[in-house]
Amino acid sequence: MTAPNRATLWGRTLVDELAAGGLEAVCIAPGSRSTPLTVAFAAHPEIAVHSHLDERSAAFFALGRARRTGEPTALVCTSGTAAANFHPAVIEADRARVPLLVLTADRPPELRDSGANQTVDQVKLYGDAVRWYVDLPEPEPDERKVRSLRTTAARALAKTVAVPPGPVHLNCPFRKPLEPTPVPDDVPDEFGESLAGTGRDGPFVETSSATQTPSSAAIETLAGALASATRPLLVAGPGDPTDLRGLDPATVVEVADRVDAPILADPLSSVRFGPHVEDDANRDRRRRVYGGYDAYANDLPAPDVVVRFGASPTSKTVRHAVRDADARQFLVDPAGGWREATFTATDLVESSPGEAFERLLETLPETRAGSTDGDWLAAFDERESRHWTIRDEARSPAELEAEPFEGAIVASVFEHAPDPATIFVSNSMPIRDADRFARPRGAELTVLANRGASGIDGITSTALGAASATDDPVVLVTGDLAFYHDANGLLAVDRCDVDATIVLLDNDGGGIFHMLPIEEFDPPFTEQFETPHGLEFEHLADLYDLEFERVEPREFDASYRRSLEREGTQVVSVSFDAETSHRRREELERRGRAETNPDR
Amino acid sequence: MTAPNRATLWGRTLVDELAAGGLEAVCIAPGSRSTPLTVAFAAHPEIAVHSHLDERSAAFFALGRARRTGEPTALVCTSGTAAANFHPAVIEADRARVPLLVLTADRPPELRDSGANQTVDQVKLYGDAVRWYVDLPEPEPDERKVRSLRTTAARALAKTVAVPPGPVHLNCPFRKPLEPTPVPDDVPDEFGESLAGTGRDGPFVETSSATQTPSSAAIETLAGALASATRPLLVAGPGDPTDLRGLDPATVVEVADRVDAPILADPLSSVRFGPHVEDDANRDRRRRVYGGYDAYANDLPAPDVVVRFGASPTSKTVRHAVRDADARQFLVDPAGGWREATFTATDLVESSPGEAFERLLETLPETRAGSTDGDWLAAFDERESRHWTIRDEARSPAELEAEPFEGAIVASVFEHAPDPATIFVSNSMPIRDADRFARPRGAELTVLANRGASGIDGITSTALGAASATDDPVVLVTGDLAFYHDANGLLAVDRCDVDATIVLLDNDGGGIFHMLPIEEFDPPFTEQFETPHGLEFEHLADLYDLEFERVEPREFDASYRRSLEREGTQVVSVSFDAETSHRRREELERRGRAETNPDR
Repeated sequence: MTAPNRATLWGRTLVDELAAGGLEAVCIAPGSRSTPLTVAFAAHPEIAVHSHLDERSAAFFALGRARRTGEPTALVCTSGTAAANFHPAVIEADRARVPLLVLTADRPPELRDSGANQTVDQVKLYGDAVRWYVDLPEPEPDERKVRSLRTTAARALAKTVAVPPGPVHLNCPFRKPLEPTPVPDDVPDEFGESLAGTGRDGPFVETSSATQTPSSAAIETLAGALASATRPLLVAGPGDPTDLRGLDPATVVEVADRVDAPILADPLSSVRFGPHVEDDANRDRRRRVYGGYDAYANDLPAPDVVVRFGASPTSKTVRHAVRDADARQFLVDPAGGWREATFTATDLVESSPGEAFERLLETLPETRAGSTDGDWLAAFDERESRHWTIRDEARSPAELEAEPFEGAIVASVFEHAPDPATIFVSNSMPIRDADRFARPRGAELTVLANRGASGIDGITSTALGAASATDDPVVLVTGDLAFYHDANGLLAVDRCDVDATIVLLDNDGGGIFHMLPIEEFDPPFTEQFETPHGLEFEHLADLYDLEFERVEPREFDASYRRSLEREGTQVVSVSFDAETSHRRREELERRGRAETNPDR
Repeated sequence: MTAPNRATLWGRTLVDELAAGGLEAVCIAPGSRSTPLTVAFAAHPEIAVHSHLDERSAAFFALGRARRTGEPTALVCTSGTAAANFHPAVIEADRARVPLLVLTADRPPELRDSGANQTVDQVKLYGDAVRWYVDLPEPEPDERKVRSLRTTAARALAKTVAVPPGPVHLNCPFRKPLEPTPVPDDVPDEFGESLAGTGRDGPFVETSSATQTPSSAAIETLAGALASATRPLLVAGPGDPTDLRGLDPATVVEVADRVDAPILADPLSSVRFGPHVEDDANRDRRRRVYGGYDAYANDLPAPDVVVRFGASPTSKTVRHAVRDADARQFLVDPAGGWREATFTATDLVESSPGEAFERLLETLPETRAGSTDGDWLAAFDERESRHWTIRDEARSPAELEAEPFEGAIVASVFEHAPDPATIFVSNSMPIRDADRFARPRGAELTVLANRGASGIDGITSTALGAASATDDPVVLVTGDLAFYHDANGLLAVDRCDVDATIVLLDNDGGGIFHMLPIEEFDPPFTEQFETPHGLEFEHLADLYDLEFERVEPREFDASYRRSLEREGTQVVSVSFDAETSHRRREELERRGRAETNPDR
């Protein structure tokens, strides 16, 4: 490697090593100080470059791509507040374990706190939210320095996908010239022939990562507890991106079969959807995967052994039912993380879920030794069936016209999604409605959300970033506040050439607050919490040249199907009154309880 | 003070003390965890509440208000990534010394890193960018704790306006109930009668701040150097918000008179505009305030004594001319800050500029003892006059039609602004064009920009926040990238009932990159740097129900005047080709040089 000047050498070397290490995509926001990185990325044939104009949206787009693939995506910005705009997505990447490589250009160190333009303190800008922070040395064709740069590239990529995966931040100081302008003798010819200059075939450092294999003792304890349980329960929480590589849901089902356990499968786990799920196509299979629990888990007998994996479940009903169960409760987590905020779990098993379930299959007896409570699975089955019946009655055209509710639309999104499809679900109400109303299906649905920090920021960009990494049809289910919050993200439809069907549940404000006691205090409820805004999103669609259709709830299914068949990005907007929708949601829950539990 | 529960007690007590301490406004984004704060602010009769839906825009709005008033503005958000969305504005507040009180709601400490929803590590979230960080204790009707809360409120406000002013971050954990729901015995009746419960008349703690008075020795040195200088020069950089309280530009002019020094007045200093400026209304006054320096400062003799105050000047020409002068160079800064990135200054004088210039007046002899170079002021006068003549010729209708350039519009914005007016100027090209083309005027123009970190984020919100704090007509001059970046900020026009005339210089991308050498490297120039987006901002105006007018450069003056006379917010958009505009800018500069310096 040689270069017209040292800044260019630095950018090219870093980008070359990242490509050699397997980096496939980068999101770049324009800026001057970052020129050496931008020029090198743009010139590299093996890295896809996505250009964004708002750094906050850029970061969420990168997050979405990394979330969908489980592979690192890089981010580049210039110095100053640009880097701070990455912060929300970096926090989400930390909490949700998403591999993100953040490259922030910086001014040379002597300019910090000197009044130099666009110079801020970027050292450890994201605090403890990153797995690794490196202040890169200043560019110089010094052999040891350049070997350190090549090595840092390899280590940074490896750390984004280590255990747990997450964001890594390289702060990159550059001085002028930033452009590939020739500077005589800045990079001596002989440098290009050194090991530092040439690098190696492939990455300068090959990295490999370990599998989190559980201890035999832990697996035997776990197997013993499950085998002797009367009311065993498996809880699949939201999956980590790396589950894509290691967790076969069929293995989880097999373990459940062995011990007669129901699996409560969060829509964000890899268990609720997929060919391992019993559905209309394979009715003879025993039901193992339950999805309606949010409506009834607190109405059932308490489990005595619970095995949890993934993040904390979306369903508060489940979290509280497990809390109140006085059960032996295992947490299986590859990073030994504690993702259970009721603090009732009894065992923390450090293991990737995939390894744990495979080892359980090897360890558990083929036929069950213990004696499951005969009513245990029957109770789940009855309530699960009842839940979907009530849901489907409420979705009939006549009912839906009389009593519209947002969950009906979310149910349709999942029921009519193509196989395969990727569905991105916004926080606040859409994810709760997906949890309650999206029925398990045998289709390959990859369901994603920003559930690390559960913000409503960056939702559109994250979904479009996921779309950039898959050939699946992509559906985004979002609310009006999230859609407003990341309106800038829509620019990626054109700039990054990605498409999605956007299902907009528009209740003109923060509908979720109707679930909370603050609803009773107005003022300030309407003005400070529900915050109706009256925005007509047709105009936003016009700005970004998207098709926009506003439909009634009963018309939704037809519009949704049409959109899925069409090229391009369509917004299908369905308006709701938040309060009516919530009252209907509560009423359906009461109905479920009343029909199975007449005394309540 | 009593309350239905401890969270409500906490919120009310904190807000009461902030109001007693003089806080006048708060920007709130909706959320659940922040309910005790939101409810208390919304109920307080003496604090204006501005509701925002995007925390990033909320923070910049608060920044704008604080920038305009020099007084603290508070910010409230819920836990999670919401708080990270404040980060860009917090960094700008740090660098630009703007008083901002950031209140982030948090989950109780035991939920950190437990998988609890919307729970992230908010401890020292903004790193060293804040003047003070406090993790508030958990609410409890304990007398000492509540006295500490009242005391913290007073100290936090004081620290936002201490030297230097800046952001303060209070992280506020709350547990349920968050709403003002009665919890029997949670706050005992007798607590309400304690000192902690009742507080005091007025603030619990009265705080007073010191003036940064310079040492006599420093003033004598400074006066001596100025009095004996041959070519003395005063450089007024961008002002701190607290200059509003202490720096009388007439005093600066008087000092300049005593020593025969020109004042190079940045448009963001308080010196370029105001009744102290000689203009058509008082032609007999000696010219002291120069505004065209960016076009010629490097063509003049070198100064031998330079006195700088305020932040580093916008003009690179000035910064480099001073760097190259080998002058004795004084920096006057209230915080003893070093805001001079060429590192050629010789003396750092810790003093508020206001104090320093008043003391200088007392110390300098009435009549000048030294002997100013006779050509010194004449050279400035000649170049200054020439600059405005060239500018005005280029602004003639015929010239403007043949050779349009953005600076002509910026010139008109300042020339035709009402007296008084507040003008907010975006970063990137608008501030550079204001620096070069906005002629000093005798009108009371308050000119603001986000020049601390010079980002193009949050521009619209900062301008509208400034508008919320003044009866002045407000004009925002912005570019298309900044307008896109903070499109969400436009929601404040309706929600916060503020108005501005928005002058949009639309060159479809990052025109500033035409000033940089990267222009020569295409690709990647167009795709990664200039980044044309093709957005038609009429649709954005429709979304936010604003009037929108697209005009030719020669039609601008008439549209601008009409907008200033009308109620409501208008967007006056003028389209430019970035490259043409830059070539014209360069040509005008060459013309200035050629006409005075025929040999160059």
